[in-house]
Amino acid sequence: MQTLSYSSQPPSPNTPSTPHQQSRNSIRLLSGILAVNILLLGSALVCGAAFSKVKVLSDEEIHIYLTILLILTTAWMIFYMVHTASRTQAVLYKDSHAGPIWLRGGLVLFGMASLIMDVFKTGYSTGKLNCESPVKVTFPLVQLVFVVVQTYFLWVHSKDCVQKQSNITGCGLMLTLATNLMLWMSAVTDESLHQTREEASKPNGSFDHLRDGSISGCECTHGACEIFEKGFYYLYPFNIEYSLFASAMTYVMWKNIGREIDDCSPHKISFRTKGVVFGVIVGLLVVIAGLGVFVVYEVEVTGDASKERVLIMYYTFCIVGLSLMSLASLAGSVIYRFDKRTVVSTKNPTRSLDVALLLGAALGQFLISYFSIVAIVAEKATRTVSMLNLTCSCLIILQLCLQNLFIIEGLHKQPYHAEPPVVSVVFINEGTSRSNPYSPSLKNDNDEPSPVENSLERSSHSHDFSSTTHSSSSRMSWKRRALKEISGFLLLCNVIFWIIPAFGARPQFENGLEEWVYGFSMWVAIVNIGLPFGIFYRMHSVASLFEVYLTS
Amino acid sequence: MQTLSYSSQPPSPNTPSTPHQQSRNSIRLLSGILAVNILLLGSALVCGAAFSKVKVLSDEEIHIYLTILLILTTAWMIFYMVHTASRTQAVLYKDSHAGPIWLRGGLVLFGMASLIMDVFKTGYSTGKLNCESPVKVTFPLVQLVFVVVQTYFLWVHSKDCVQKQSNITGCGLMLTLATNLMLWMSAVTDESLHQTREEASKPNGSFDHLRDGSISGCECTHGACEIFEKGFYYLYPFNIEYSLFASAMTYVMWKNIGREIDDCSPHKISFRTKGVVFGVIVGLLVVIAGLGVFVVYEVEVTGDASKERVLIMYYTFCIVGLSLMSLASLAGSVIYRFDKRTVVSTKNPTRSLDVALLLGAALGQFLISYFSIVAIVAEKATRTVSMLNLTCSCLIILQLCLQNLFIIEGLHKQPYHAEPPVVSVVFINEGTSRSNPYSPSLKNDNDEPSPVENSLERSSHSHDFSSTTHSSSSRMSWKRRALKEISGFLLLCNVIFWIIPAFGARPQFENGLEEWVYGFSMWVAIVNIGLPFGIFYRMHSVASLFEVYLTS
Repeated sequence: MQTLSYSSQPPSPNTPSTPHQQSRNSIRLLSGILAVNILLLGSALVCGAAFSKVKVLSDEEIHIYLTILLILTTAWMIFYMVHTASRTQAVLYKDSHAGPIWLRGGLVLFGMASLIMDVFKTGYSTGKLNCESPVKVTFPLVQLVFVVVQTYFLWVHSKDCVQKQSNITGCGLMLTLATNLMLWMSAVTDESLHQTREEASKPNGSFDHLRDGSISGCECTHGACEIFEKGFYYLYPFNIEYSLFASAMTYVMWKNIGREIDDCSPHKISFRTKGVVFGVIVGLLVVIAGLGVFVVYEVEVTGDASKERVLIMYYTFCIVGLSLMSLASLAGSVIYRFDKRTVVSTKNPTRSLDVALLLGAALGQFLISYFSIVAIVAEKATRTVSMLNLTCSCLIILQLCLQNLFIIEGLHKQPYHAEPPVVSVVFINEGTSRSNPYSPSLKNDNDEPSPVENSLERSSHSHDFSSTTHSSSSRMSWKRRALKEISGFLLLCNVIFWIIPAFGARPQFENGLEEWVYGFSMWVAIVNIGLPFGIFYRMHSVASLFEVYLTS
Repeated sequence: MQTLSYSSQPPSPNTPSTPHQQSRNSIRLLSGILAVNILLLGSALVCGAAFSKVKVLSDEEIHIYLTILLILTTAWMIFYMVHTASRTQAVLYKDSHAGPIWLRGGLVLFGMASLIMDVFKTGYSTGKLNCESPVKVTFPLVQLVFVVVQTYFLWVHSKDCVQKQSNITGCGLMLTLATNLMLWMSAVTDESLHQTREEASKPNGSFDHLRDGSISGCECTHGACEIFEKGFYYLYPFNIEYSLFASAMTYVMWKNIGREIDDCSPHKISFRTKGVVFGVIVGLLVVIAGLGVFVVYEVEVTGDASKERVLIMYYTFCIVGLSLMSLASLAGSVIYRFDKRTVVSTKNPTRSLDVALLLGAALGQFLISYFSIVAIVAEKATRTVSMLNLTCSCLIILQLCLQNLFIIEGLHKQPYHAEPPVVSVVFINEGTSRSNPYSPSLKNDNDEPSPVENSLERSSHSHDFSSTTHSSSSRMSWKRRALKEISGFLLLCNVIFWIIPAFGARPQFENGLEEWVYGFSMWVAIVNIGLPFGIFYRMHSVASLFEVYLTS
């Protein structure tokens, strides 16, 4: 209702920037309040159902709530797509930085896994239809439609900077964001409760009050139930990741509402691997070793006898890999100290959002690591596995901090290989060139000083500068080469540190110490919240490192 | 270590804005990472001690950690004060919007309560020194010094925009913020556990596992122990509030690092109550009624027989008060639709921060209300008290949304009573005056159109516009008068809705329904997290409404 009273005055393109800014702010305010209300109501439902002992609330209420949200969001997305398709003027600007290919690719990948999960869930729920609520069958079917529509929507429209009807769009995007976060919250809770129940069903489990819970009373009518259940619980992490990806993309779209972008074309930078050997080879060695460790881990971790040995192997690999990565990041940061390239000064909301997502996603790993450290130190554990786990957790924190600093600094540097902008090139002497912080001196890019240096005069209109370089020069300076080696190496290492948790390795639960200190259900919740962010972080840093590699 | 490598290149004042901006960003990044690490380590300690069943971690570790943080923060604050006192050039700019008097006043008020709490805590702990760790005596003493130093520090320096040595200052401020948030977290946990234990010691309590906890083994050596314990638990909420206030002020200081402010003088607006009668009278009636309800509540709520009656009275008062406030806010927002005053377009970080704090603090009340609503609806409770509680919770959400919209819109409007800026005043005809969105037409300020209208030509340099008005005019327009009535009324209502929870009314626990649905410990945690934010919100909105009153 409030939104309608606001939308009666759509921002006309002729008004100056003040009312425009004001209208953007009021859209943000209203849609933000909407999202907060949806999320808090949802949190109350989820908490009530998950932690309440008296079972006043059941899964049914949450599923009804989620189904309503999914239907509303799907309807809005279809409305938006039809609306923008029918009017050519609907989207005037596109943000070329938003929705990069890795994000969209990841969305499709995890979206497909979510679809399979929904099919499995539907199959499982139909088998229990005689004793459970029909909502449990409706929900995965609606979610299936939602995933298809949303993946298509974000694939096509994630770069849109909406100008018209931005009130409705703002609220619609916030609805989408809230729905995705609700799906994430409910999936994390489901997964955690499921794991706690599984732990309880073990012979030595101490969760007797959970064993005679909601499951035992209801028998499945067809034989495939158990396979379906195993399947969809295996696919849960992918669905959690899907929600995070969709949330990130929706948030970027929402931030881009009403934004008018001047520079639509990204710098075209060619991808060349020539001359970069050492970093890639070491990186590939780490990847191969990691794959070997992963396979051995997955095969042998189930046996009680071999568990300790496998964990020692796993932690040793992590320690070696993380140490190398930390050293590489540190070296990269040191090289940046001597790197005289100008810093991109243009205000770029997508870039700052990128950095914020990188830093925010790292919190997930931080959370798990700090809880591990405190548990091991408090317990004064002296087993080899615990000491290795402690070292590994400390190294993760160090590595993430150093890598974040390296990536963020790299992203803000002007690319070496930019196309020369069309501005007047003047010849000035070396002294002037150095004293002017805006004129990138070529002296730093090459080993020998060139007798005449090209420098760009600062144009008063364009703040977006690019260094010129001898594009034809066959040799790179040692600094550029080192930066390329480092970013290539880090990229490959991040790939393997993404693969291992993404495909199911959970040493956090095999270790046994933390769950003893914090209690199983709390530790499960921490890992289930932290790990998906950690996986997201690795993917995001791979993409960012690729960009750093290209611009170095 | 990372900070040192960064601080080797302090931002020199001669460099242009690009490196300046870059240095600001790198300071934010580094100090942010520092704060996140402190907070996550602290969270792990607090969670481990509070929720762990095996008691590997005890209060002692947290107290040692907090003591170290307090000593470091105190040392840094003293260093900062000595440093700025010794150099006249240390702080060149002051942000006049930062650290307003209500925030500093509240800080001193809650700081004094915290001091008394620390004295009580020390007294209590010395009595148990024979059987408990000496850390428990050291901690309140260190905290006492910290509170004194920090209150003085924030009182004197909260408006500083630090330019020099901003690396150390950034990290120091983030350390202060993290310490305050850690104190808040530990106080909320302590308070929640204490309440849970109290509930457990009741005859019908179901928390037997907590009864033989850490307390029973240790006897106090002097007689005043019980009084001290009662005293400091009564003062806990004030200490929680103190941490929130200090956090908010530190955060504003941190955001102001490196900021260069042009406009140092706030608009001088005189405070006049002339002509504003109706709103103030109704507001005062609500305040008096509220005080009456509060006194009766506090006296009679302990008796089982009178509890139901008292709660009905309390909820009825809330419903009436909140309905009136919602209607007033709605009317105010409607009046703004017809209000043609220009919007302040200058980018003002403190103002946006103000708005963010207002919206963020409202989340606390939202949280409690949504959990109440879900509990009552799920339980399908039909008791009068529950229905009243449901209505009240819904009204709180509605009222907060409407009031936030009203306040935020009001804060962004140009004041009516601004001093006329020194720009050329030209006479233009009415038509031009209306078509130019920057020239505020006086037609809207007065009931009769004046034959000649003064209008300000837009100056290209100053974006900060003010409407001129007949300062001597004896009558206000009906719109201004209505806005003043509304903001005056809302101000008084917010005062009473601040007093009731701030001085100890907790109907959330008397009601009994929510704690039954969510479990006592979870409900206690929700209320203890949400309520201090709610109290902070009411104080903040009183201050903001006062500003809206002045500028209307």
